Amino acid sequence: MIIILRPNTDKNSDEYRETLRYLHNLPNILIREHQEIGVQQILTELYLIGETSAITSEEIALLPGVERVVRVSEEYRILGRHKDETRSSHFEYNGVLFSQNNFNVFAGLCAVDTREHIDLMMRALQANQQVCTRMGAYKPRTSPYAFQGHGKSCLPDVFELAGKYGIKIVAMEITHESHIHEIDEALSNTGHPTGVMLQIGTRNTQNFELLKIAGRQQKYPVLLKRGFGITLEESLNAAEYLASEGNRRVIFCLRGMKTSASDPHRNFVDFAHVPTIKRLTRMPVCIDPSHSVGSRAQSPDGIMDIMHVTAQGIIAGANMVLADFHPAPEKALVDGPQALLIKELPRFLEDIAIAREAYEKRVALFAQPL
Amino acid sequence: MIIILRPNTDKNSDEYRETLRYLHNLPNILIREHQEIGVQQILTELYLIGETSAITSEEIALLPGVERVVRVSEEYRILGRHKDETRSSHFEYNGVLFSQNNFNVFAGLCAVDTREHIDLMMRALQANQQVCTRMGAYKPRTSPYAFQGHGKSCLPDVFELAGKYGIKIVAMEITHESHIHEIDEALSNTGHPTGVMLQIGTRNTQNFELLKIAGRQQKYPVLLKRGFGITLEESLNAAEYLASEGNRRVIFCLRGMKTSASDPHRNFVDFAHVPTIKRLTRMPVCIDPSHSVGSRAQSPDGIMDIMHVTAQGIIAGANMVLADFHPAPEKALVDGPQALLIKELPRFLEDIAIAREAYEKRVALFAQPL
Amino acid sequence: MIIILRPNTDKNSDEYRETLRYLHNLPNILIREHQEIGVQQILTELYLIGETSAITSEEIALLPGVERVVRVSEEYRILGRHKDETRSSHFEYNGVLFSQNNFNVFAGLCAVDTREHIDLMMRALQANQQVCTRMGAYKPRTSPYAFQGHGKSCLPDVFELAGKYGIKIVAMEITHESHIHEIDEALSNTGHPTGVMLQIGTRNTQNFELLKIAGRQQKYPVLLKRGFGITLEESLNAAEYLASEGNRRVIFCLRGMKTSASDPHRNFVDFAHVPTIKRLTRMPVCIDPSHSVGSRAQSPDGIMDIMHVTAQGIIAGANMVLADFHPAPEKALVDGPQALLIKELPRFLEDIAIAREAYEKRVALFAQPL
Amino acid sequence: MIIILRPNTDKNSDEYRETLRYLHNLPNILIREHQEIGVQQILTELYLIGETSAITSEEIALLPGVERVVRVSEEYRILGRHKDETRSSHFEYNGVLFSQNNFNVFAGLCAVDTREHIDLMMRALQANQQVCTRMGAYKPRTSPYAFQGHGKSCLPDVFELAGKYGIKIVAMEITHESHIHEIDEALSNTGHPTGVMLQIGTRNTQNFELLKIAGRQQKYPVLLKRGFGITLEESLNAAEYLASEGNRRVIFCLRGMKTSASDPHRNFVDFAHVPTIKRLTRMPVCIDPSHSVGSRAQSPDGIMDIMHVTAQGIIAGANMVLADFHPAPEKALVDGPQALLIKELPRFLEDIAIAREAYEKRVALFAQPL
Repeated sequence: MIIILRPNTDKNSDEYRETLRYLHNLPNILIREHQEIGVQQILTELYLIGETSAITSEEIALLPGVERVVRVSEEYRILGRHKDETRSSHFEYNGVLFSQNNFNVFAGLCAVDTREHIDLMMRALQANQQVCTRMGAYKPRTSPYAFQGHGKSCLPDVFELAGKYGIKIVAMEITHESHIHEIDEALSNTGHPTGVMLQIGTRNTQNFELLKIAGRQQKYPVLLKRGFGITLEESLNAAEYLASEGNRRVIFCLRGMKTSASDPHRNFVDFAHVPTIKRLTRMPVCIDPSHSVGSRAQSPDGIMDIMHVTAQGIIAGANMVLADFHPAPEKALVDGPQALLIKELPRFLEDIAIAREAYEKRVALFAQPL
Repeated sequence: MIIILRPNTDKNSDEYRETLRYLHNLPNILIREHQEIGVQQILTELYLIGETSAITSEEIALLPGVERVVRVSEEYRILGRHKDETRSSHFEYNGVLFSQNNFNVFAGLCAVDTREHIDLMMRALQANQQVCTRMGAYKPRTSPYAFQGHGKSCLPDVFELAGKYGIKIVAMEITHESHIHEIDEALSNTGHPTGVMLQIGTRNTQNFELLKIAGRQQKYPVLLKRGFGITLEESLNAAEYLASEGNRRVIFCLRGMKTSASDPHRNFVDFAHVPTIKRLTRMPVCIDPSHSVGSRAQSPDGIMDIMHVTAQGIIAGANMVLADFHPAPEKALVDGPQALLIKELPRFLEDIAIAREAYEKRVALFAQPL
Repeated sequence: MIIILRPNTDKNSDEYRETLRYLHNLPNILIREHQEIGVQQILTELYLIGETSAITSEEIALLPGVERVVRVSEEYRILGRHKDETRSSHFEYNGVLFSQNNFNVFAGLCAVDTREHIDLMMRALQANQQVCTRMGAYKPRTSPYAFQGHGKSCLPDVFELAGKYGIKIVAMEITHESHIHEIDEALSNTGHPTGVMLQIGTRNTQNFELLKIAGRQQKYPVLLKRGFGITLEESLNAAEYLASEGNRRVIFCLRGMKTSASDPHRNFVDFAHVPTIKRLTRMPVCIDPSHSVGSRAQSPDGIMDIMHVTAQGIIAGANMVLADFHPAPEKALVDGPQALLIKELPRFLEDIAIAREAYEKRVALFAQPL
Repeated sequence: MIIILRPNTDKNSDEYRETLRYLHNLPNILIREHQEIGVQQILTELYLIGETSAITSEEIALLPGVERVVRVSEEYRILGRHKDETRSSHFEYNGVLFSQNNFNVFAGLCAVDTREHIDLMMRALQANQQVCTRMGAYKPRTSPYAFQGHGKSCLPDVFELAGKYGIKIVAMEITHESHIHEIDEALSNTGHPTGVMLQIGTRNTQNFELLKIAGRQQKYPVLLKRGFGITLEESLNAAEYLASEGNRRVIFCLRGMKTSASDPHRNFVDFAHVPTIKRLTRMPVCIDPSHSVGSRAQSPDGIMDIMHVTAQGIIAGANMVLADFHPAPEKALVDGPQALLIKELPRFLEDIAIAREAYEKRVALFAQPL
């Protein structure tokens, strides 16, 4: 059960204290408080956890200072889209808006290699009016004997060049809590030239300890990738670990599932779940066409499958795309065969615009009364 | 190896005989002949099966009457898109064109129930300028105790009403060879008011005997559904059974795969394979959004998942859609919960038009030199 | 609901007629009758299908001639192991007993090739006191260009040699109803020297028309293989198609499932479901280790995986094993790499004996009160 | 490439230095050293990583102090069973031997709850001559709102009671590196009454950072569970992360895979891979029947599926079993429905003995020349 208090409720007020006293007397109920601090107002929410079935919404709605009571199902308490849910679902980070209603592109390097490649990539992004990118410093690899990423040593280059080319957000996978501190430090040392979105990859979707730690910090938003071998419900519950610890700036990313039915694609593209996730939760939904498809194969219409599945995600309402580019894919240390070329970036963006425009036309069509 | 003879080659000509004599003398080689009879010319192809690795293309190209030699990989000999493949891949049936470059809609009843419902459905199709439909008479059901379709008894109604409302093709699943004869007979008895496309369902994708029989007849084109629990390669090989027996008028239909990763969709939507199949084969590709999604759930943008995945298939180049409609879904005997309403048909078609237009814009974009 | 009448109930008796009259008056109920003709008595069962929830067991138990009433769940009406089920679950065919309590070995050729190989195989079986075998004449193959089996032409050799070496049952896959007639004819032409168990393979598990036809004949028992890409429930429902048409002499065969988790085995060995199927149904359970494992790989203990999984099936109570052998695997036309050698047959049988003995000790252990 | 030096090679010897100097001069080669310190001798191994294809085994074998050179495939360098591999594969911990040739039972509580239950469990183990157990303090749960285990607070009770009842090893899942320190501390505070085997669960199989940390310590052996949604190869590579960091005391545990084919079992039992893993690697193989099956369902022979699959694992050579027991399953906080009762422990052990005896008979049978 979620209790939404009136905006700007003072914690020292009598009504707040009275309400809390009442709630603390309820048997077998744990209370967790969350504050959403906006520009104009502070919103306080109280989460009741435990035997809430014994309490009625009416009883709670009558308590002083309570604006609204939402009875939630067991699942996705915070991020879920509950019955009659009208709460907002967007956030802004470093000047960039993320919501279920807009669209952002994160093109960049799957794995950072040389300073020259970072520079070429960022320069191209700026030339194409892009302010977000992806840059992999920490790479989880199936075999311990494979290249594991340059780690913290490449962070200063990445952040400095991001600042140089006006990039506002770098999406970057982390695989251990220490990486958050390394990012903190490198950002601080370079004078905070850009922002960072923490990515948690598909092998760590159920690394609950990492989720809790990424959930406890509120400095960086988190992009959580769907687990490639678990159910959608389990992956959405994993997102809830982030939110239940306090960080609600969570984006959910589809990246394909592991199954033998995916061949010849690397993973089974799951972008049909874009609208499904928007129905079940309030998170913006990202798609990762590069890791889903895993090759530059193209159909007789001259369009690569990577472009096709990107368009598929967008025409169904995706809010973000993560795409692998590389200035010289044959030299890439990780996943070169699926990287797009820098000269393909403008067309990639044009193609996205066509699909997004089609999505908006569709929304307008369905907004009309039947 | 495929040997394409010059158009209108006469089987009684000296050159034909000489070439055949040469081929028959090759050790461990079987020859299969296929004729494509067009309006203006007859095209003869000879398939060499067996130890073709010992033969060179050059040697065969020099034989009299030979226009071109295509060395094919083991797989998808006839339907495959082989290296340097330029052969045409379209066919016309009862005035309707099917190819990898155009688009057709087959909306209709998953399972035929009453004459009244057939009439309502067909009337609505005509009112919306549609000339194709789907009508299920033979329904394979998981349990022997479930409704199995009205079978041949409903065929006269279906065909007669199709004729009345200008429907040129009825797609209809068959599960046994006898159904072909029943369809023959009912069409004949009603004066051939319409055409029929035979559907082979996902449970019969590897029912090779049924495929061979549907492949031996050339009266009806065949829509083969992908097997929901086998690899794509295995399903494409199944299509090849139809072609290897002589029937090349084959459309391949994606309908979702069985895996626990699909929830809450009924099946795992596999429309990312639309461009993949167009790359691997020359078959037109159909999508079945109704059985993939399996419900009328809709996202907060007011658009049903069924509509979303339809748009996804089309923006990636799908050539046909099969969709379940019903005048009164609550009375439907099979799959009512996923049926669209007749009043939703116009909007469904408008939505399709938006997605198809976006696809065509994308093709034009990628046709420009980079 | 199943109504079991008193043994040897005469259909012309007054009590039979009165009971039938009563049942026919029940609204929305269909009655299907089944007779089990044994050596000493005839057992008649009446199946009530439809709105049985409105009828009480007590009401029916009072009707004349009724011995017992079993209320069944929707699923597996005939083959299922319903609540308080005590009905027998064995059958004898050509002198061989099949039940959930005993064990039979079917070693033989996956695909029949030469008369010499059939002879060598059958001779080895006789030398090892075996009276059952498997012999594949009709082979469903993924590609239309692969060897499809010798079909009816090899049947006379198979049956004649079976007779010569005292083989009482040949398990043989069929893929089309015409194969039943071809088997009939070949058995008749050779003087019925042996019996045949019809196998329906994993690609045809949901070929409901073939199941119905194999279910309508009662001459041959049927071995139904589990579908390799569907749920267990769906496969058990497929078995019910055989029974609902009249043939209850059905054995259910586990043969591994298709999933990427199976590697390096060809299929994911599913023999943990042996006890599960015995709990859910009354069918004897067969295992097919050859197609599950698909190779002759062996672990450091010197035992092949094929032998290991055979032992696993048996120690959990399997009732039959189907195993591929070949006198010269390198010459086998189908699945040579997984075939056991004829000289390995005695050890295979000894290994089976160890596992079966262990199973029997386990049953004795658990039969003691805790 | 692995270079095994002569036993007790001194690092200050001339031959050692000369060999190292030679190796350091090889281009693009990284050297990693590992010492296996036994009671009687010290074994030094040098791992060459990088472009080893340019080096010949013969060239290296001639270097001073080298006893043997093993060229390894890319995968499973340390834990793998390479061509002509004869290296030992066992280890002893706290007086208990683990190898591919013996068998150990770990029965215990899935999740620790009360001191009374720990006491009852441990007492029963001692009464049945058991010296190992499983005790879950840290429980990774799908939902953040579910009980997450008592954590470090229960460790003193667990260790103290283990000591009291003569338990030598407690297998305990960890989900974060800090848990290792908490275990260190609790063992130290209680006077080291027992040993601990660290478990890494199926959700963390590819949590490479946790694997590296568990691999860097050598105090505790590690039980790694197979990832339930990845390939076997990927899971074995994960085990290699432990070994490549220095800890070779690794046991690999099968626990069932996630797929819809598993129903009605909780997971798809994968114990057919027991001999496969023994072939591919030198690790002892554990089975977890409780989490695989997930219920107490039993077949008509009166034996629970949990017992059946345990016997299946053992008859194919499993080396360890992890089983959930609980004194009062109805009060268990986690996975109660699959727990065995304490009074069922003696029979569980007797059943295991029957299966193990059968396995040993099988090994003896196959040890005879064919």
